[in-house]
Amino acid sequence: MMLNPADTAFVDHLRGLLPEGSLHAPEPRYLEEPRGRWQGLAGAVALPRTVDEVAVIVRACAEARVGLVPWGGGTGLVGGQLMSEGPAPLVLSLERMAAVRGVYPDENVLVVEAGMILADVQRHASAAGRVFPLALASEGTCRIGGNLSTNAGGLNVLRYGNARDLCLGIEAVLPDGSVFNGLKRLRKDNTGYDLRHLLIGAEGTLGVITAASLRLFPQPQVVGTALLAVESPAAALKLLALAQERLSGMVSAFELIGRMGLEFLAEKIPEVKSPIGMAEWLVLIEIGLPAGFGSAEDHLSGLFEAGLAAGLVSDGVIAASEGQRAGLWRIREAIPEANRMIGAVSSHDISVPLGMVAEFIAKGGPRLAALGDFRVNCFGHLGDGNLHYNVFPAFGRSRKDYEHLRDAVKTCVHDLVAELDGSMSAEHGLGRLKVDDLERYGDPGKIAAMRAIKAALDPLGIMNPGAVLRA
Amino acid sequence: MMLNPADTAFVDHLRGLLPEGSLHAPEPRYLEEPRGRWQGLAGAVALPRTVDEVAVIVRACAEARVGLVPWGGGTGLVGGQLMSEGPAPLVLSLERMAAVRGVYPDENVLVVEAGMILADVQRHASAAGRVFPLALASEGTCRIGGNLSTNAGGLNVLRYGNARDLCLGIEAVLPDGSVFNGLKRLRKDNTGYDLRHLLIGAEGTLGVITAASLRLFPQPQVVGTALLAVESPAAALKLLALAQERLSGMVSAFELIGRMGLEFLAEKIPEVKSPIGMAEWLVLIEIGLPAGFGSAEDHLSGLFEAGLAAGLVSDGVIAASEGQRAGLWRIREAIPEANRMIGAVSSHDISVPLGMVAEFIAKGGPRLAALGDFRVNCFGHLGDGNLHYNVFPAFGRSRKDYEHLRDAVKTCVHDLVAELDGSMSAEHGLGRLKVDDLERYGDPGKIAAMRAIKAALDPLGIMNPGAVLRA
Repeated sequence: MMLNPADTAFVDHLRGLLPEGSLHAPEPRYLEEPRGRWQGLAGAVALPRTVDEVAVIVRACAEARVGLVPWGGGTGLVGGQLMSEGPAPLVLSLERMAAVRGVYPDENVLVVEAGMILADVQRHASAAGRVFPLALASEGTCRIGGNLSTNAGGLNVLRYGNARDLCLGIEAVLPDGSVFNGLKRLRKDNTGYDLRHLLIGAEGTLGVITAASLRLFPQPQVVGTALLAVESPAAALKLLALAQERLSGMVSAFELIGRMGLEFLAEKIPEVKSPIGMAEWLVLIEIGLPAGFGSAEDHLSGLFEAGLAAGLVSDGVIAASEGQRAGLWRIREAIPEANRMIGAVSSHDISVPLGMVAEFIAKGGPRLAALGDFRVNCFGHLGDGNLHYNVFPAFGRSRKDYEHLRDAVKTCVHDLVAELDGSMSAEHGLGRLKVDDLERYGDPGKIAAMRAIKAALDPLGIMNPGAVLRA
Repeated sequence: MMLNPADTAFVDHLRGLLPEGSLHAPEPRYLEEPRGRWQGLAGAVALPRTVDEVAVIVRACAEARVGLVPWGGGTGLVGGQLMSEGPAPLVLSLERMAAVRGVYPDENVLVVEAGMILADVQRHASAAGRVFPLALASEGTCRIGGNLSTNAGGLNVLRYGNARDLCLGIEAVLPDGSVFNGLKRLRKDNTGYDLRHLLIGAEGTLGVITAASLRLFPQPQVVGTALLAVESPAAALKLLALAQERLSGMVSAFELIGRMGLEFLAEKIPEVKSPIGMAEWLVLIEIGLPAGFGSAEDHLSGLFEAGLAAGLVSDGVIAASEGQRAGLWRIREAIPEANRMIGAVSSHDISVPLGMVAEFIAKGGPRLAALGDFRVNCFGHLGDGNLHYNVFPAFGRSRKDYEHLRDAVKTCVHDLVAELDGSMSAEHGLGRLKVDDLERYGDPGKIAAMRAIKAALDPLGIMNPGAVLRA
């Protein structure tokens, strides 16, 4: 079924249905993505202020069979937020829907509109004496509607879950322009199919999330951070199990850093250094406790000593001040910056079962070495089995020298992930970049069911055409 | 579209497709439900041993347009497990699929087949040194596939979530007989629509769950339980907020008991008594900590004193032994038994936003009093906003005297729940009992989307016909 472009006639028609100033010519920022890989198309950008205006826009698109691309902060890394081929769509930006709908500190609930920037959600939670734990590198730019549409992960998943786990309810406009009023503040609600969980992670292909009811948590009163050197990924995983036994539910981050990450820092951001030198593998662990449960330093040094006794840990440092904590985190956070400076041949956001992480790392290097001379920077959210497995040119060479190997590298990594029953998109989603990967690696029963659901809810195929499933 | 009965010809045909002994005449237990409200129909009961056999059965039903009712432990309270009208369906019991598929203690994962009894899941977790926290009254009989299909709740939701939150992946047979191989052990997997969350809570209307990958947790090393007297539901909720601030993430249960519950015990099970007498409202709180974080008694008495200082708590007892702990829980657990002995006019499994609990309780009594002379026993999982709000005859009268008021009582309670933006089925599901309630109270956008999904995945309407949505 062919879609029509959002041409002048359509935009003029839509203009008559919306308040003045709701439609704009597409500024470049709506048509670019962070890595500059694709150039988007758009007939116009709609900037609604209310859910009713969103419904008007979606209905108009449905009537005219015009594709619609929902747009939050534009930070997605898999091209879900822009169409670069086909009839020019309408871009639907949620930027102007960024209000607080309600704050309920005693319920640990915050209800906000989809266009609120994630850092603002965090600030509103903090002002209510609570924490909204979703935390990612792009938090100053990305918007909560996009976080939910892509089921964002980030740094605190180990303790608090993914974006979907932090959401009690949503309001959304479905592809026929009807509104799903599901903005519940309930912990338990078993009244039929869970549309919330279907729309979360659907990357805007089944509807537009316009507001969300979010879970808040008490602020940890005592926070501690340590950087520990371990011999191998297998030792890191045993340390994780030990940490969870000793500090059950209080471990908020458990990040892996490989020696290559430290070498990249030495090469590109030399002022950021590990205080325990060039270890083969480092683990950054953070814990958060209520008051009255002892000092974080004591609990972390207990873990360090238990790890030492079990032969898992060889060295370590425990932050003794806020400044030291920030310094330890800076190491982890600077690695993606160094990566960008060096320029990857291919980056992979993968997950495997925790018990397969060591095997994945052990097998990945040799398989890539058979293809060419690479440097692999493997780091990430070990506690979630989620690794950013990024493949770089050999020292002194450039990514341009490897253009011809890019697809082979990606296939090599994703094939290994599939062998180990993992996921080739752990937290970034499929967007348009990984549509082929879903077809290659996805379960056929699941893909058939996804197509049936897409056809049932969006028979015209107007919602984010070409994302997740081929248009 | 009319379905055909599972008649002799169909059953004979199916018999030829399955190993000997896979089909049985329906024993009474497959056709009764716990409260004896409905009598089920069945042409035969199929007892497959493998997912492939389930697929054969579903395909045969699809080809012959025969309805199929998935059956786990038969403990559901809303009639989801039996059809009492229409062409006799095939009952598909998962009882023989009760094997462990894999135990991964270091991953905190257990993979089991859908027919495993919940208590056995708990035992396998325990044998691996972990805990599977789903806990409900029927745990000795209900099966994990049914728990997931109904998104069961129970006692530990406050800390660990509902059944859906405890499941990393599922294997299921879809209505066309295809298999969804989604038995992942991943914490992060953003590769398309979340079919797992769609099938969980769908009560067997979109497919049959045949196996699940379950989350385990470290065993709390130090467990403490207290029974505290509070003046009002509002005070109980403030105490909950205080407990969460002081004991964040370590509160596993926060149960409300009203005076009527204690009076019912005195009337029917007098050996079970509250050690602090006839309080207006009691809260049963349980906490679980790792070792090394102090004693549970100290933390609970700290909470008690803080509650006293804030004017929220007037009396209380903290269990000093396992026997005392069991005694406190016995009070909570005996209340449903006393309820059954007295015989309710109408029972309600409702939830409201936490901030609305006090208002719900305050308004419910007077509204019911306008209908007749009732006793209300309101108790349940306060931490989840989930109350079992059960309405009984006045003392000395019988439920038979109130038959004519039953529907009015139910409507009165559910209308109030709807006004407060709550749910008329918090943890039991819709089954066949609440299909009308969904139509009355459900969001029209959601219902339309549910119908579209049902029609897309089960166009013949063979999967658990008449449950959740009208056939």
